[in-house]
Amino acid sequence: MSRSHETTSPLDELAHSRLPVAARGSVRPLSMDEVSLSEDGYWGVWQAVNAASILPHCASWMESEGWVDNFRAAAEGTLPETRRGREFTDSDVYKLIEAMSWENGRLPTPALEAEIRQLIDIVGDAQEPDGYINTNFGRPGQVARYADLEWGSELYGDGHLLQAAVARARTSGRDRLFEIATRLADHICDTFGPEGIQSVCGHPEIELGLIEFARLTGVERYRRQAELFLERRGHHVLEDIEFGRAYYQDDVPIRDAAVFRGHAVRATYLAAAAVDVGIDRNDTSLVEAIRAQLNRTLARRTYVTGGMGSRFRDEAFGADFELPADGAYSETCAGVGAFMLAWRLLLATDDAAYGDLMERVLYNVITASPSPDGRAFFYVNTLHQRAIDDRSDGAQSSLQVGLGERAPWFRVSCCPTNVSRTFATLEAYVGVADSRGLAVSLFARGRITARLDDGSTAEAEIDTDYPHDGRIVVRVPARDAGGWRLRLRVPAWAQGATIRRDGTAPIVVAPGWVDVDDVGIREEEIELLLPLEPRFVFGDPRIDSARGAVAVERGPRVYCVESPDIAGAHVDGVIVDTASPPWMAGTDEVTVSAHVEQLESSSWPYAARPAAAGSPVARDVRLTPYNEWARRGPSTMRVWMRTE
Amino acid sequence: MSRSHETTSPLDELAHSRLPVAARGSVRPLSMDEVSLSEDGYWGVWQAVNAASILPHCASWMESEGWVDNFRAAAEGTLPETRRGREFTDSDVYKLIEAMSWENGRLPTPALEAEIRQLIDIVGDAQEPDGYINTNFGRPGQVARYADLEWGSELYGDGHLLQAAVARARTSGRDRLFEIATRLADHICDTFGPEGIQSVCGHPEIELGLIEFARLTGVERYRRQAELFLERRGHHVLEDIEFGRAYYQDDVPIRDAAVFRGHAVRATYLAAAAVDVGIDRNDTSLVEAIRAQLNRTLARRTYVTGGMGSRFRDEAFGADFELPADGAYSETCAGVGAFMLAWRLLLATDDAAYGDLMERVLYNVITASPSPDGRAFFYVNTLHQRAIDDRSDGAQSSLQVGLGERAPWFRVSCCPTNVSRTFATLEAYVGVADSRGLAVSLFARGRITARLDDGSTAEAEIDTDYPHDGRIVVRVPARDAGGWRLRLRVPAWAQGATIRRDGTAPIVVAPGWVDVDDVGIREEEIELLLPLEPRFVFGDPRIDSARGAVAVERGPRVYCVESPDIAGAHVDGVIVDTASPPWMAGTDEVTVSAHVEQLESSSWPYAARPAAAGSPVARDVRLTPYNEWARRGPSTMRVWMRTE
Repeated sequence: MSRSHETTSPLDELAHSRLPVAARGSVRPLSMDEVSLSEDGYWGVWQAVNAASILPHCASWMESEGWVDNFRAAAEGTLPETRRGREFTDSDVYKLIEAMSWENGRLPTPALEAEIRQLIDIVGDAQEPDGYINTNFGRPGQVARYADLEWGSELYGDGHLLQAAVARARTSGRDRLFEIATRLADHICDTFGPEGIQSVCGHPEIELGLIEFARLTGVERYRRQAELFLERRGHHVLEDIEFGRAYYQDDVPIRDAAVFRGHAVRATYLAAAAVDVGIDRNDTSLVEAIRAQLNRTLARRTYVTGGMGSRFRDEAFGADFELPADGAYSETCAGVGAFMLAWRLLLATDDAAYGDLMERVLYNVITASPSPDGRAFFYVNTLHQRAIDDRSDGAQSSLQVGLGERAPWFRVSCCPTNVSRTFATLEAYVGVADSRGLAVSLFARGRITARLDDGSTAEAEIDTDYPHDGRIVVRVPARDAGGWRLRLRVPAWAQGATIRRDGTAPIVVAPGWVDVDDVGIREEEIELLLPLEPRFVFGDPRIDSARGAVAVERGPRVYCVESPDIAGAHVDGVIVDTASPPWMAGTDEVTVSAHVEQLESSSWPYAARPAAAGSPVARDVRLTPYNEWARRGPSTMRVWMRTE
Repeated sequence: MSRSHETTSPLDELAHSRLPVAARGSVRPLSMDEVSLSEDGYWGVWQAVNAASILPHCASWMESEGWVDNFRAAAEGTLPETRRGREFTDSDVYKLIEAMSWENGRLPTPALEAEIRQLIDIVGDAQEPDGYINTNFGRPGQVARYADLEWGSELYGDGHLLQAAVARARTSGRDRLFEIATRLADHICDTFGPEGIQSVCGHPEIELGLIEFARLTGVERYRRQAELFLERRGHHVLEDIEFGRAYYQDDVPIRDAAVFRGHAVRATYLAAAAVDVGIDRNDTSLVEAIRAQLNRTLARRTYVTGGMGSRFRDEAFGADFELPADGAYSETCAGVGAFMLAWRLLLATDDAAYGDLMERVLYNVITASPSPDGRAFFYVNTLHQRAIDDRSDGAQSSLQVGLGERAPWFRVSCCPTNVSRTFATLEAYVGVADSRGLAVSLFARGRITARLDDGSTAEAEIDTDYPHDGRIVVRVPARDAGGWRLRLRVPAWAQGATIRRDGTAPIVVAPGWVDVDDVGIREEEIELLLPLEPRFVFGDPRIDSARGAVAVERGPRVYCVESPDIAGAHVDGVIVDTASPPWMAGTDEVTVSAHVEQLESSSWPYAARPAAAGSPVARDVRLTPYNEWARRGPSTMRVWMRTE
């Protein structure tokens, strides 16, 4: 049974948006109802795949794996005997409800609405009288509530429930999920408040949930609780563990840290929550602390794809420049975390560079995960596949994290729903509104109709084949209220980008925001041309995988060489001739000139002289966008290609 | 209470040796009583440290961690409640007894003898009536016997008990430990024989124990059981797991595998056992299969140090050329496994190249583990320490495997006793006897008195400061029985080595065995001069860490640059000038000419052009033998140094 609460809230102007107006700047996020993406655009296609495949795929797996049944069993009182899955599977059900809710707000269907209501009821029936809800803790025969804050992920799951409730409330109103979330949030504040348990959850996420729920409800207590969690962390409130307290960022208070460290998903989620607090409290020093940590992380601990977290052992950032390509972890969820963080920093600072980061992560990590049919995923995003996964050779082991091949599901299946909820909310990220108009931060075919502070509307129709093509056309109709300012993001890589207004000559524009003043006075077409010639990229020589090697980028996308394009030779034998720049041999056909060695190795690989190439064969080698690799079946693959 | 069985066995001529005469060749191992190492030689010093420090250190930790108490508790019937430590801690107690027994054979003391007897009694009192012995399985409240062959390590522990019994019997005779071992071996054969459980242990080791026990006792059933275990493995008799069956080499039958794969300790132990079977059965094809697998492993999956197993996630070999320096696992125990294997292959094939491998692993992995005082160990042997372990920065986490600093003990503490039992048996590895004389495989100051087949004795006194100096002098006294053949190993790196017999001019000799015929007719001094100029070594460019980089070796040792030698600069800033060869600036003072960059990095590390060096400062940089790194406190360290 579901109940609907179509109440009017003082924050109703924020409907469909996860964030409020940035307290300290002039930038606010767009509501999802201010944006529509074309079905045939790059992102429209992914959203359709999400609706048609990823969501039902995830729902079906969660049913068959018993993760939904765990809630049913909780209501029926058959736990813990019948419980299935890892300790944190509840969170995946919540993320599914969140993703479904956003999708249902974007493109409502009765079937999806019914499915959401059913899941809400199943979850709600498992809630205990005091608001606590978790299928893995607290019953006879289970670990006691909050007895394992280090690893239990209870509050992590709660944060996802709150985010699901926010999504539901902002898209369909305040129904039973809102009540469930309110009772849960109150329970958390009662339990972990100033007089309560003075600790935090090993996996940050509750902070994000509480702040978003505070923004939805206007209840200050929830925001304060999020702040309490942020302030406590870093003071060794959790146990020291095998991986050190840095693993869950309990090593150093958040304002004092120099760089992201430990588990990459935890680190990025926590930083995102800190920016949220910084925005809501107008706390510039907190935002600046996170900016500095991210800057150092981008300079020393990030893959060229934008991927974060290089270590398998603890899913963590490594030391500076410890960025193995063949051993890259670069978890999909860390990409989602980096994306969430970059978006918040864009809102907090109006710095277009965070749009660059959002784009890099979106095109090279988040979209690298799903297969085009939305039924298989990479959990780990390696930058170098040395061997075709052949378990009989042991060259790769599956780890159940999808090495070399996208997998339909995982024992720990955080990534698919994280991709799904990102796709379902893509409208929210394509632009931001400010007091003078509208800024386009991501290029996607569609229409933006932003409500401005003065009550007028800024309307822009965007037409582009980006990232296949660098031409972005913005059509602005004339309006009665007079001119407004359009801003367009010029990415840092787009040296030589030009902009042209109707009837004028193109002007070269520098990276950052380019302002187009007084649009809307007359109907107008503005054309931004981003140079999409493929380009070589060289890495800091301290990065072992990049030293003596080159990568290729085109627009926002990183490319790679895959074995099907070199007639069965090994990608490790490709030696790129960097004297000839890469070129386009057709649509999306990025090509490099290379020699391809026939590789041989039967003796000790360390010698008194550098290895001399055998008799390499010169040829043109076609590259693949990194996010499309392994779509033709298992292959060897390399982002960093050897040079002479 | 201990009982002694000083029986005479048909294999008494093998006393003090772990292996019998190689069935198929003319090479046999030396008994430990055929060799004595000088106390002041390189190895004599390590043996003294072992006796004085490592053994008591390990014994003390096993007492304080409760690993010995587990046996007491088993006898008292207080298990499982009082059990402490991981499931396989019994094996460490057995390895301690083994190491103590060999040491007590080498240099007996009443105190050590008493300690061994006490441990044997403690262990023996825990044995169950049917011969089974394990403190972690089979009691009410514990997992049933053999219910978890994948992870339980029961037979792994049993193998170590059998090896301990062999050590004790070969050094002090057949006492209570021999009885315990006999009952255990019979129990295993009853349980896992042709009519028994058709499976194997997830961690190979029982095979080695059974073969050695068969050689000691002459009981064929034990050898046959080892063969059964070898033959069963690879046919998917164990469960598929997260890491794949390759993890425990149950993916492919041992004769069919192409390369070592999976867990490196498991892989090397298993291969060593296969060579043992190959020797005892005169099974050339089995030995050749292992040779081929090792050859491919050396060509593609081995660090320049000889270290094996690059992956933290599953302590496993990675794909070909997946050899990160900064993320190297290179477990000390895998070094011991490779050493055991190489020694057996040397005996099986008489190929001097296996002496080279023994030496490489001994000088660059096994001796890299202990601190000079024998009270701290590396478990993991990285080739590149990027950051000084600063847990507040999260740059490194301890993992309890000693990253950046040697640790006194580990939750999984297999390595210290493995180092200890290797040091206690070093006499066994310095040479081999053949029908015509004696071959010196490792250079150590000491004396060899080998019994030859004809009943005569080949005696050689070896004087050398190796590895500090390349001069090896072998003094051979005149004997009545006439001449014999002395062979000396010339390592592959020793280009230009010379040999000189009394009163003759030096002759350049090629790597491999160099024969010196008819020694012993008169008193004679033979001088082998190995060129110990330091040399550059370049790696296959498919190895990311080695590409655009150089390593330095001198003699059998790999060198590295450590931060204390570059005045606090970072080792990543050292750029070696390979136009000038490395040189000696004093005893052991290997030096290279280099530029040292002051490193800066505040922005995105990927750019359109390769990074240009700032204003590097030219200086001579002193290198440290890799096995002595981190002795001056935490440092950054690099084996593969950048080149221009």
